[in-house]
Amino acid sequence: MAVYTDVSDEELAAFVAGYDIGGVVSCKGIAEGVENSNFLLQTEAGRFILTLYEKRVEARDLPFFLGLMEHLARAGLGCPLPVADRGGKALGVLAGRPAAIVTFLDGVWVRRPTAHHCELLGEALARMHLAGLDFAIRRPNALTIGAWRPLWERSRARADEVAPGLAADIEAELAVLEATWPSDLPVGVIHADLFPDNVFFLGERLSGLIDFYFACDDLLAYDVAVCLNSWCFEPDLSFNITKGRALLAGYQRVRPLEPREAAALPLLSRGSALRFLLTRLYDWLNVPPGARVTPKDPLEYHRKMRFHRSIADPAGYGLER
Amino acid sequence: MAVYTDVSDEELAAFVAGYDIGGVVSCKGIAEGVENSNFLLQTEAGRFILTLYEKRVEARDLPFFLGLMEHLARAGLGCPLPVADRGGKALGVLAGRPAAIVTFLDGVWVRRPTAHHCELLGEALARMHLAGLDFAIRRPNALTIGAWRPLWERSRARADEVAPGLAADIEAELAVLEATWPSDLPVGVIHADLFPDNVFFLGERLSGLIDFYFACDDLLAYDVAVCLNSWCFEPDLSFNITKGRALLAGYQRVRPLEPREAAALPLLSRGSALRFLLTRLYDWLNVPPGARVTPKDPLEYHRKMRFHRSIADPAGYGLER
Repeated sequence: MAVYTDVSDEELAAFVAGYDIGGVVSCKGIAEGVENSNFLLQTEAGRFILTLYEKRVEARDLPFFLGLMEHLARAGLGCPLPVADRGGKALGVLAGRPAAIVTFLDGVWVRRPTAHHCELLGEALARMHLAGLDFAIRRPNALTIGAWRPLWERSRARADEVAPGLAADIEAELAVLEATWPSDLPVGVIHADLFPDNVFFLGERLSGLIDFYFACDDLLAYDVAVCLNSWCFEPDLSFNITKGRALLAGYQRVRPLEPREAAALPLLSRGSALRFLLTRLYDWLNVPPGARVTPKDPLEYHRKMRFHRSIADPAGYGLER
Repeated sequence: MAVYTDVSDEELAAFVAGYDIGGVVSCKGIAEGVENSNFLLQTEAGRFILTLYEKRVEARDLPFFLGLMEHLARAGLGCPLPVADRGGKALGVLAGRPAAIVTFLDGVWVRRPTAHHCELLGEALARMHLAGLDFAIRRPNALTIGAWRPLWERSRARADEVAPGLAADIEAELAVLEATWPSDLPVGVIHADLFPDNVFFLGERLSGLIDFYFACDDLLAYDVAVCLNSWCFEPDLSFNITKGRALLAGYQRVRPLEPREAAALPLLSRGSALRFLLTRLYDWLNVPPGARVTPKDPLEYHRKMRFHRSIADPAGYGLER
């Protein structure tokens, strides 16, 4: 649930008047997204998403995020296109916060992805990776391997409150990953958070990707691992290899994985599972009073991490040579 | 903040297929309304609001609410029009809840109404009252004078926690209102909750009214009193008589108040203030754990109630004879 900032009609009208998109017809806060305040804005020119960036997003990162969306949209990828104001700027200020207007992306996200959805997702992810190769701005991944230990330090003392033995297991896993994390794999712009709620479908067609606010430079195959984690497990947390096969086949049709990337998939998947385990664990242990967001169960990703430890070969995910 | 129920893409597609409005193009939960789950639904035929009725709304009242919106819309009043499904029914079931689709009403609500907005609001309220006179379904007001004492009993013991002396003041006020509440004034369908967030404007034009889920049969002039309370006080809780004058002039241009209605305005305004004081007091004292809605300050309406006690004549609201 989001919308942390209320925008008055006068402020909104004045802000929109700075763009060449006609007058405001309606504006509704959207109950989605946990980082920013989002509004579905209808003007005389059409539908847009108005985003107010709340303090969890670093203002200095906004040119990267908005520039990336523009770069990807111009490359033909389905994603929101930032709208420039009359002065040519995509980033403005509204209600005291950095704010931007982007085009509206049709489609709905699928609650229960099928193998077909996974295949289309794999294709779109690979297209995004290729389209991002010539994007000029750099942004290191703030939530990659080197960031996990400091994050872990903030939860370690209380981790066993969530599940007995969890602290020792995470400790051991982190040590293995830090010792073996690959550094020689192809790097580029990754989405880093491409869960099903960030991918829209119109009927059987994938209409686009949204929410690039974790995007950064990192190992491309790590992004594949994030998607294996978020798309290919069933509600009972069993891995569905048919979905894994479809996702990887879709990806490889557009961008074949190099052999060393394929070989690293089990390790990268463990790392991706640990990353979401750590952030969810922290949020679980630190729910602010009066929070309007229910924290997500960290143990879901502990189960997934343990599954990946049982996979020695990428064929275990359905990867076909 | 609302959206209490998540709707899967499959359930949504199946529900929308029961209507002649094309396929789903997008569907976003709206962060507005505290009673129901609302979604901005775009289909191939246009924009709609999809509402899932949560348990605070009585299912047996839904034919009244939906029938009233249809009646008022057909009478030319700007308000959402319920869309009938292919079987001719406006009320269906989605995600286990009663659900309806209504047309989308353009416009935004004004955070700081001017006298001009108040005048247009008065006109629209009077038009609604006239249009409701030949509506066939009856619904007694569940929150009128007879309901206030039982509501008060649930908060009385703890009222002084909110402000010292509050309990005695409410007790005395309730006794006066119960003894003097008018029973001989014109009755009809009232909105009963026509606060600024339920009235949309497009530029300087009032585009329509929404949220009829407190509508009922009651004294028409009581609805005017609700609007005096919710539109004509400044943020510092001083009464702005220019706005009161504009609201009443707008109303009377369409439906002149009878002299006994005008004379009752101070008493009705006290009663309306007490009604919102009592519901807010109850909500204030009974915030559920994990609530996603911040309760509204009950003392705002205590201040307003005390103001109305100082008014002996409707001229004190700016009423012109």
